[in-house]
Amino acid sequence: MTTAPAPARRDAETTKAAILKAARYLLARHAHADITLKAVAERAGVSPPLVLKYFGNKDALFARVMSFDTDADDLLDAPLGDLGRHMVRHVLASQRDRGADPLLRIAFAPLHGDHGDVLRANFRAQVTDRLAARLTGPDAGLRAELAVAALIGVGVMYGIARGPHLCESGPDEVADRYGPLVQAQLTP
Amino acid sequence: MTTAPAPARRDAETTKAAILKAARYLLARHAHADITLKAVAERAGVSPPLVLKYFGNKDALFARVMSFDTDADDLLDAPLGDLGRHMVRHVLASQRDRGADPLLRIAFAPLHGDHGDVLRANFRAQVTDRLAARLTGPDAGLRAELAVAALIGVGVMYGIARGPHLCESGPDEVADRYGPLVQAQLTP
Repeated sequence: MTTAPAPARRDAETTKAAILKAARYLLARHAHADITLKAVAERAGVSPPLVLKYFGNKDALFARVMSFDTDADDLLDAPLGDLGRHMVRHVLASQRDRGADPLLRIAFAPLHGDHGDVLRANFRAQVTDRLAARLTGPDAGLRAELAVAALIGVGVMYGIARGPHLCESGPDEVADRYGPLVQAQLTP
Repeated sequence: MTTAPAPARRDAETTKAAILKAARYLLARHAHADITLKAVAERAGVSPPLVLKYFGNKDALFARVMSFDTDADDLLDAPLGDLGRHMVRHVLASQRDRGADPLLRIAFAPLHGDHGDVLRANFRAQVTDRLAARLTGPDAGLRAELAVAALIGVGVMYGIARGPHLCESGPDEVADRYGPLVQAQLTP
């Protein structure tokens, strides 16, 4: 038997998620410097003081949005021998089901000036270096970057270029076809 | 014996290239609606009237920047059996030598509202559909999109995420390693 969370707590989580989603949306379309807390609040359908209550200030909110930590937990959550297929499936299912992508925020680094470097450093530490640490054999760092590159590409093709053939295919079908390419970098 | 172009003509080509480069730079960082001809001219180091002289108006300039036609000519310029390796090499060499990427502009489609759809339609007609037309066998459309996805990904990892291992590797080395993955979509 599962216990439903108390309504107040569920509302807080829902509100926080809406605020993070709004901040992610805006950061993919506008320079960091041009985004106000008010705009984030408006897009999330909450008041600016509520954003401050949950996240402290704009920098703290954006630091949270610019982290890949939680997303990478799910992305990398498979045994190494099946990781290629799992990651392809996860990227596509995340885009389809949540309109989100565990990796795609890195593509918007050029928008954010110095903050783009924060995004790059987080991406390296939390995604590519973390994957590389699981690989054996020569050139693990390069192989991890190429595996992640292939995943970013399929995310851009699905969520940004909106390739019609890819968008019409199921995550499992694409994972069967594209997963082995990613896997070839992980376990050559 | 080759004949050097007359200085005036060479200057015009250099100027046009500088204007296109400036427009590309700004379109990768700002919403289409926020970019002025004046800003393009300033970045290119020319006067606004000169931009108008060469490109007519802002829409005509941006239409030119939003086309993938010329870039796709070079990208796809190899026999099908060696195309995977050629395309990987071309993406990396373009980034390294010219600071440009034949495909990466598609990643900035979300910045440009309705103009983003122009970018997507051009990308489809001039890149993925054109590649698909060269493929034989089932699912040519999906395979072309996945091959191009892999290329976009390596462009993002090199030029935007700036993965240190990838940036330190030569285009030939990466093409040897990653080209077969692209090729597997072209000639499975």
